[in-house]
Amino acid sequence: MDSRFIWAVLFFLFAASGASSSVSATADSPDGSIRVTFDLKEGRPFYRIDRFGRELIRPSAMGFILKDAKPIQGPFEISSVRTRAFDETWTQPWGEKREIRNRFNELTVSVTEKAPGARRMDVVFRVYEDGVGFRYEIPAQTGLDRFEIMDELTEFVLAGDPQAWWIPAYLPDKVEYEQLYRRTRLSAMDTAHTPLTMETENGLFLSIHEAALTDYASMQLAPAGPNTLKADLTPWSDGVAVKTRAPMKTPWRTLQVADDAGGLITSYLILNLNEPNALGDVSWIRPGKYTGIWWAMHLELATWGTGPKHGATTENAKRYIDFTAKNGLGSVLVEGWNKGWDGDWTAHGDRFSFTRNAPDYDIREVARYAAEKGVGLIGHNETGGAVPNYERQLKETFALYEKLGIQSVKTGYVNFGPRLQRVDEKGKTVGEWHHGQYMVRHHQKVVEEAGRRHIMIDVHEPVKDTGLRRTWPNLMTREGARGQEYEAWDPEGGNPPEHATILPFTRLLAGPMDYTPGVLGLRFGPERPRNRVNTTAAKQLALYVVLYSPLQMAADLPENYEKFPDAFRFIREVPTDWEDTRVLHARIGDYVTFARKDRNSGDWYLGSVTDEEGRILETQLGFLDPGVKYTARIYRDGDGAHWETNPYPLSIEEEPVDASTVLKMRLAPGGGQAIRFIRAQP
Amino acid sequence: MDSRFIWAVLFFLFAASGASSSVSATADSPDGSIRVTFDLKEGRPFYRIDRFGRELIRPSAMGFILKDAKPIQGPFEISSVRTRAFDETWTQPWGEKREIRNRFNELTVSVTEKAPGARRMDVVFRVYEDGVGFRYEIPAQTGLDRFEIMDELTEFVLAGDPQAWWIPAYLPDKVEYEQLYRRTRLSAMDTAHTPLTMETENGLFLSIHEAALTDYASMQLAPAGPNTLKADLTPWSDGVAVKTRAPMKTPWRTLQVADDAGGLITSYLILNLNEPNALGDVSWIRPGKYTGIWWAMHLELATWGTGPKHGATTENAKRYIDFTAKNGLGSVLVEGWNKGWDGDWTAHGDRFSFTRNAPDYDIREVARYAAEKGVGLIGHNETGGAVPNYERQLKETFALYEKLGIQSVKTGYVNFGPRLQRVDEKGKTVGEWHHGQYMVRHHQKVVEEAGRRHIMIDVHEPVKDTGLRRTWPNLMTREGARGQEYEAWDPEGGNPPEHATILPFTRLLAGPMDYTPGVLGLRFGPERPRNRVNTTAAKQLALYVVLYSPLQMAADLPENYEKFPDAFRFIREVPTDWEDTRVLHARIGDYVTFARKDRNSGDWYLGSVTDEEGRILETQLGFLDPGVKYTARIYRDGDGAHWETNPYPLSIEEEPVDASTVLKMRLAPGGGQAIRFIRAQP
Repeated sequence: MDSRFIWAVLFFLFAASGASSSVSATADSPDGSIRVTFDLKEGRPFYRIDRFGRELIRPSAMGFILKDAKPIQGPFEISSVRTRAFDETWTQPWGEKREIRNRFNELTVSVTEKAPGARRMDVVFRVYEDGVGFRYEIPAQTGLDRFEIMDELTEFVLAGDPQAWWIPAYLPDKVEYEQLYRRTRLSAMDTAHTPLTMETENGLFLSIHEAALTDYASMQLAPAGPNTLKADLTPWSDGVAVKTRAPMKTPWRTLQVADDAGGLITSYLILNLNEPNALGDVSWIRPGKYTGIWWAMHLELATWGTGPKHGATTENAKRYIDFTAKNGLGSVLVEGWNKGWDGDWTAHGDRFSFTRNAPDYDIREVARYAAEKGVGLIGHNETGGAVPNYERQLKETFALYEKLGIQSVKTGYVNFGPRLQRVDEKGKTVGEWHHGQYMVRHHQKVVEEAGRRHIMIDVHEPVKDTGLRRTWPNLMTREGARGQEYEAWDPEGGNPPEHATILPFTRLLAGPMDYTPGVLGLRFGPERPRNRVNTTAAKQLALYVVLYSPLQMAADLPENYEKFPDAFRFIREVPTDWEDTRVLHARIGDYVTFARKDRNSGDWYLGSVTDEEGRILETQLGFLDPGVKYTARIYRDGDGAHWETNPYPLSIEEEPVDASTVLKMRLAPGGGQAIRFIRAQP
Repeated sequence: MDSRFIWAVLFFLFAASGASSSVSATADSPDGSIRVTFDLKEGRPFYRIDRFGRELIRPSAMGFILKDAKPIQGPFEISSVRTRAFDETWTQPWGEKREIRNRFNELTVSVTEKAPGARRMDVVFRVYEDGVGFRYEIPAQTGLDRFEIMDELTEFVLAGDPQAWWIPAYLPDKVEYEQLYRRTRLSAMDTAHTPLTMETENGLFLSIHEAALTDYASMQLAPAGPNTLKADLTPWSDGVAVKTRAPMKTPWRTLQVADDAGGLITSYLILNLNEPNALGDVSWIRPGKYTGIWWAMHLELATWGTGPKHGATTENAKRYIDFTAKNGLGSVLVEGWNKGWDGDWTAHGDRFSFTRNAPDYDIREVARYAAEKGVGLIGHNETGGAVPNYERQLKETFALYEKLGIQSVKTGYVNFGPRLQRVDEKGKTVGEWHHGQYMVRHHQKVVEEAGRRHIMIDVHEPVKDTGLRRTWPNLMTREGARGQEYEAWDPEGGNPPEHATILPFTRLLAGPMDYTPGVLGLRFGPERPRNRVNTTAAKQLALYVVLYSPLQMAADLPENYEKFPDAFRFIREVPTDWEDTRVLHARIGDYVTFARKDRNSGDWYLGSVTDEEGRILETQLGFLDPGVKYTARIYRDGDGAHWETNPYPLSIEEEPVDASTVLKMRLAPGGGQAIRFIRAQP
């Protein structure tokens, strides 16, 4: 079908620069639906994006403000225009889809300042069927070596005032990104994180984000006039946004567009704009599930610090290892195992050791026992925000873990606001944001060091994902949103039922998320009288399919899983690595249904979740392999189930289905449904 | 799958009536998702509707204000409560789907006034999985024979302030219903016609309408307080709403609910609430296509009245008959054939004869010629609003048509505002609305007389559809919305591209619509410099599948069809009678995609239309019969097509597909796509 859309029009209009001439260069997507136009107006650079001949992004400014130097914003002349067509299909070593097509037309416009001592800049556009990526490249040139960017002038001028789902940037007393999504018109939005998801009045879904953020400040979007968003770069503590030198390339600024909200999810533009695998052999990287000494601390049944309720004891770790081995759950995360947890560790993160264990925890013995049982271990490196302390120990730490066979590390940066420690040039400790260039560099350092030691990384309190897992496939997953732990202790009652119906269209457009689903003990003990899990049991199962993560936690206490063996069966069986992903229903904030195909067995899995409303959803199973008979093992909300009043009822039923079956799925208020489609043995 | 939802809970709480007691009766839908509760509060009747335990309709008043008698609104006592479960599958002799399941739980509450001379009333609820119907029944009783209803107190109190798509009622200078749909919050709505389509903040789609309107006033919905709509009955010219006598039943008041907008379209609740076929043998009723001496008049290339440009000449009719025979299009409509068109016929409709032809038109010769060619004729009865004149001639007219073999009649009531003629009791001519009880009775008379003469009816300027085609299957289709003729002459430029993406979710929830699609000559001659068809060519084809009508016009001039034989092929081939209907994409005001299966060949057809935005829509063909190979003949917008600037490009391509195929459909701005899926011969 696709082949008839393969046509590329690439051209540019290039007039000799007159006094007030307008020169432009244009590129169309391979299917012709999207057009990017780069213009110089009075020598200043602008770009615009049209789709099917209608404005998506109106002429929008570009350029930079530098420290102690003239702004880079023209007047320019176009010195060259280059185009190329590109089409490849690459394989994700693990992921939500195995084969990904990367097809774009590229336009590179080189501009040169008219003034004496003219500086040069390239703007590179990649135009896809599902959106556009563009970046600035500052080539090596005389007179421009080190420089500091104070502000990036990139604008996104929208053609109207769409609905936006957003979280605010710069909340000084909150962990970055861990907010409930707000839905307002764009005109009522404050500076927001990306990905920023929008729906236009004519029913187009847009996402603005960035790709390949490796040595730059994170980009937020700030209101800057009617329908206008402007790049906002997280500053260093000294006010500079980006410290760099030529030659350099910025991250890609991205706009994705789809006619259905599900189309944003199955757009792989962010991954496509990242560089290919830089690690070489990645056969040692294995997606999987894990359990953890973790949820008990959130419920105050155990502590991170030492004492009578210390969770991370050798004995308790062995209990988790036994449970994990018995149930084939892969790995065990142990939090609170090391030195440094006693006292206010968020204020004294530099007390953390990442190699020395607490007195009642023997890291070597636990590692030996895990290996004996065939269970992986996930090391835990909570920094409390003391980044220099972590960086000092990094090589030694990962060397030890490699020796002990610890194949994954969960990092953590719990701290509130711009207080992550950095030691500045004068030896003074200053506070940095979670998502400035300093932390971008830090995370890059961690993942590269981990790669050398064959360690997979799961970042909590991270910088947002920008698709780096393509280049560094050991960068598995992140938090970077309100996860399930808010259900345990949030004074405002946790994540409302709609939260999980928004995440796939917002946070997860960036990449995998370690939400930590699978809590079947939906009500807590007397330690947590005002909190509970705001879902039904079936919805907890569905989250494994809805919220993609290559490392997926079975978050609940082993004793709770033993109480609910029927539901737990789904958690034991659901894979974490997929051949393909389809979005079957996509209504942001209302409900969403995914179907994903297991890479290994070829079985399909379905997950569907709803907000506060009960739903009756018709689902055509046309995604199943043609001609194959399946048994659908359906985990549905039991009759009368309701997240608030009656969350436990779960009915498990089996029925024969094939690609022509239409299922009528019933989801309770705040409920969900999970299905395994088991291929009939031939 | 469905069987596991078959459970019915029917119960009532019936307390002896104390001084201020609240008594209630409750019924659940067969699947348990919807609950209706009837209550007496201080003796006054209220109902409420919940879905999955959440309020859909809050407690809402019921009852009547009568003329010269006490209101019927209590205080009541419940004298009996009866329940029954019902489940049948019935066959539509023609329609958008052959087999329709009618499954509901019914609750009948009989109430009696507490006062002396107590009157009795029944309220009957039918509770479906997809909504609720309820009506009032006034049984025969002493002291209540003839009575006049001044106002119906029925309320619909919504649980929030949803988005509504609506057209205003009571526009005195417009033809009823022929308005563009408005989209506002419910709180900003004026009195509106039904069906009224709404979307709640949590993503539920609702439609309020009525079923089985046969001898009552049409119900509109008037704002009556926060989130509150109240029944508004179209009055007679003397101010009375309904003239009736006991025993009587009101039409059903209906609420349909779905989690996806497409679910409103495939809800058959309105049909289910109508009575079964009252005509007996209906083998003479045949859906089909027709051409007509009609579009030429809208383009001012011909006239209805006599003169040099008179369209309805014997010669021209024969030309149309030849064209229709050659292309297998079924029937020919001839407008302007009879006496009465000269002068201002909207003011002098009583000059119309429905049996005598214009001097240059020989009805008998045309009928003879049509029969010889195997082509049907559609008689045209424009009344100009002079209803008594039409009723006087009705028997004689239909008797003549039956004799001549004219199997269908298009009726018309072009007049502006409440000016349809009625002769009142004193012999005075008064003006009536199109949709009051007088016209409801008139249309009923026409369809019943037509049934006796084996004539099918197509009503223009009708009363809105309420599903009567189930009972009188010769009541084929209606106008009752802005049809394609507005493209020809509307001073404001015709129907904007979004119009056809709203109609399926609003007007067509009531029943079939004679939109008259298929105009391929998208630009007009110098007679119509400011108008044009606001679609691409492909969208004109798609409308045959999107806008269901059992009588579907090929509206354009024969000479235009001869200019575009490739596109015309789809119009020649597309059926008008369907085995099944699926809605594949459903976004009100943005885009909509239908798949329908031909009743005869088993081929499937697809139609997709968009608004001003171009679209890329993924369509999983899982609806195709499993295991069957098809050739998809695709009529798509050509590259660069655009409704406004470049409407003609149309690409026709064939490719092999089956149920596992995913099509990526490209629709131009204001465009569409039509596909025939041709079964491979085994």
